[in-house]
Amino acid sequence: MKKNPFAERLAAFAEKVAAKKLDAAVVFNQANVRALTGVDCDNACLLVGGGRVVLYTDFRYTAAIGRTAPWLKVDDIKKLNGKKPLSVRGLSFGAVGYESVITHAKFLSLEKTFPKAKFTDILEDIGELRAVKTAAELDALRAAESLNDEIWAEARGRFRAGMTERDMARIIKHLMIERGEGEAFETIVCVGRNAAECHHVPDDTVWNGREPVLVDMGVKLGGYCSDMTRNIVPARPSPAYKKVYALVLEANRRAIAAVRPGMTAGALDKVARDFLAGNGYGKAFGHSLGHGVGIEIHEKPFAAKNGKTVLRPGMSVTIEPGVYLEGNLGVRIEDLVLVTEDGCEVISHSDK
Amino acid sequence: MKKNPFAERLAAFAEKVAAKKLDAAVVFNQANVRALTGVDCDNACLLVGGGRVVLYTDFRYTAAIGRTAPWLKVDDIKKLNGKKPLSVRGLSFGAVGYESVITHAKFLSLEKTFPKAKFTDILEDIGELRAVKTAAELDALRAAESLNDEIWAEARGRFRAGMTERDMARIIKHLMIERGEGEAFETIVCVGRNAAECHHVPDDTVWNGREPVLVDMGVKLGGYCSDMTRNIVPARPSPAYKKVYALVLEANRRAIAAVRPGMTAGALDKVARDFLAGNGYGKAFGHSLGHGVGIEIHEKPFAAKNGKTVLRPGMSVTIEPGVYLEGNLGVRIEDLVLVTEDGCEVISHSDK
Repeated sequence: MKKNPFAERLAAFAEKVAAKKLDAAVVFNQANVRALTGVDCDNACLLVGGGRVVLYTDFRYTAAIGRTAPWLKVDDIKKLNGKKPLSVRGLSFGAVGYESVITHAKFLSLEKTFPKAKFTDILEDIGELRAVKTAAELDALRAAESLNDEIWAEARGRFRAGMTERDMARIIKHLMIERGEGEAFETIVCVGRNAAECHHVPDDTVWNGREPVLVDMGVKLGGYCSDMTRNIVPARPSPAYKKVYALVLEANRRAIAAVRPGMTAGALDKVARDFLAGNGYGKAFGHSLGHGVGIEIHEKPFAAKNGKTVLRPGMSVTIEPGVYLEGNLGVRIEDLVLVTEDGCEVISHSDK
Repeated sequence: MKKNPFAERLAAFAEKVAAKKLDAAVVFNQANVRALTGVDCDNACLLVGGGRVVLYTDFRYTAAIGRTAPWLKVDDIKKLNGKKPLSVRGLSFGAVGYESVITHAKFLSLEKTFPKAKFTDILEDIGELRAVKTAAELDALRAAESLNDEIWAEARGRFRAGMTERDMARIIKHLMIERGEGEAFETIVCVGRNAAECHHVPDDTVWNGREPVLVDMGVKLGGYCSDMTRNIVPARPSPAYKKVYALVLEANRRAIAAVRPGMTAGALDKVARDFLAGNGYGKAFGHSLGHGVGIEIHEKPFAAKNGKTVLRPGMSVTIEPGVYLEGNLGVRIEDLVLVTEDGCEVISHSDK
């Protein structure tokens, strides 16, 4: 029989449920169900508690799950539709863990499924478990980020003066479909001063071949995301651009050099933030330093000002300082790194 | 000053809020905000009530919204973060409408923003308003569905024996990025008996060029979705396939001919269902007949067994009967139609 590659994480979750004195926890979020069982299904609920692990789903998925995850007990998700209380032999439901990201409508339905239960949010607990990747997940992230490097190299070589941001984004999208599983997020391409808008959407701005171009991209592969930002630096950049680029690159390098297990994600953010602030660009760095990447593009740890997650070996985190000068220019340099025992492994290999 | 093209729908919504005796309604869902204001923004809340319409968002979007939707009063979304009660001059908050699709976490935050309020779900009301498309939206749907026709014709011409389902899906995805705004939903390609699985995901199954192929696809254009299912029928189909295909096509035609404003979506579903059941395929038609299409791929009206929405001119609805014989074959034929004063306009033009 095949072994559940997420068995260890699932066991840790069951322990957490017990430690929190919960009779059971119900997990609906698709990415969370996948991270705990390996099963990717858009209509499932994992119930964990009192020594039981049951995946509730509908008839459309039962057969496929039986083949790919034979270690899972599967039952009918209609039992959780809030029409009558769930009864499971040997399990009482006085205290139930749930994810606060479920819709309010689903929460109201849960209150009917577990009429006597007190509900406790366990979203953060699952997020912490997911943050530390399994060996197979680390390999999946390396493979996705390598493919992202390869696509960037190829796409960049195809960019020509006269193309619009949309044209360039389209080249990347095509390559991502051809070689991977498409985009992990909507590709960002910013020509010239458009890069000063932190959330610019590729439009019909034409590249004259001499302006800088900022590209933030990530391909999906094997169900895992990748993420990287690079800039096409003009042969003769303006002095202002040159200065900002050098500072952002230094902030990126300093943060990478600072990664250590045991530090908080907030302390990591501070390394880049203090450096840029010290050089007069504190206000120009208007977002956080980074985030974990995995089944989803934004996961724990969040390297933000008050990021409390303590970095541990096996976590992934982006290092993406940026400086944005409104109406003028923007630079962001982003690498994806994996936290190791004594620092980190940078898995983005594109020149910067 | 530019006029809000959704002004009429927004006014109807404000009337609905007043009619329900609500002091205000808060709309967070991105598609709902867009359908009521035209603004497409992933961090916004529309507050409607007591003669006021305010769009709350963050600094990243304020400038762009000011340009594209100058008719909207914009304010800071931090005022709705649940840290202190919202106070708006001239508005009390004893009764507040909300969408039950918001996360439970957001609902808990709303309870802090409106500490004395009784909350009423207004999701269905917005859904009903969105179901009747504006003239511009109908044009957008026609354009998207025509592009979908064009892509299907081109993709079909490129399919070759020896390709996998994934290869064929990729051809479609490329065309959708090249000519439109990508996929409205994950393209479905099923070779041979894989079509018997209602929710088959394209895999490495190779097409021998003689088996039937089922393709369910929709391109996005101008922010609107399209949706169509077609089948490549072999030159010499098996007698069973031939029979099923003819019956599904007849069910599709009968349902299209039956569309009338004033009937319920459930009554429309019944036309196809009764026909297939009368021919012994009642159980083989395991899903509902169709759904509306617009900003989202699945909208009201839902032409399901108990679909209560009454069809009105300006609504869109898919007509997609199917017959699935496990381990053997599957056929689904899907057109998108627009309800008119005396029937419907079929906006899918591909041969069937």
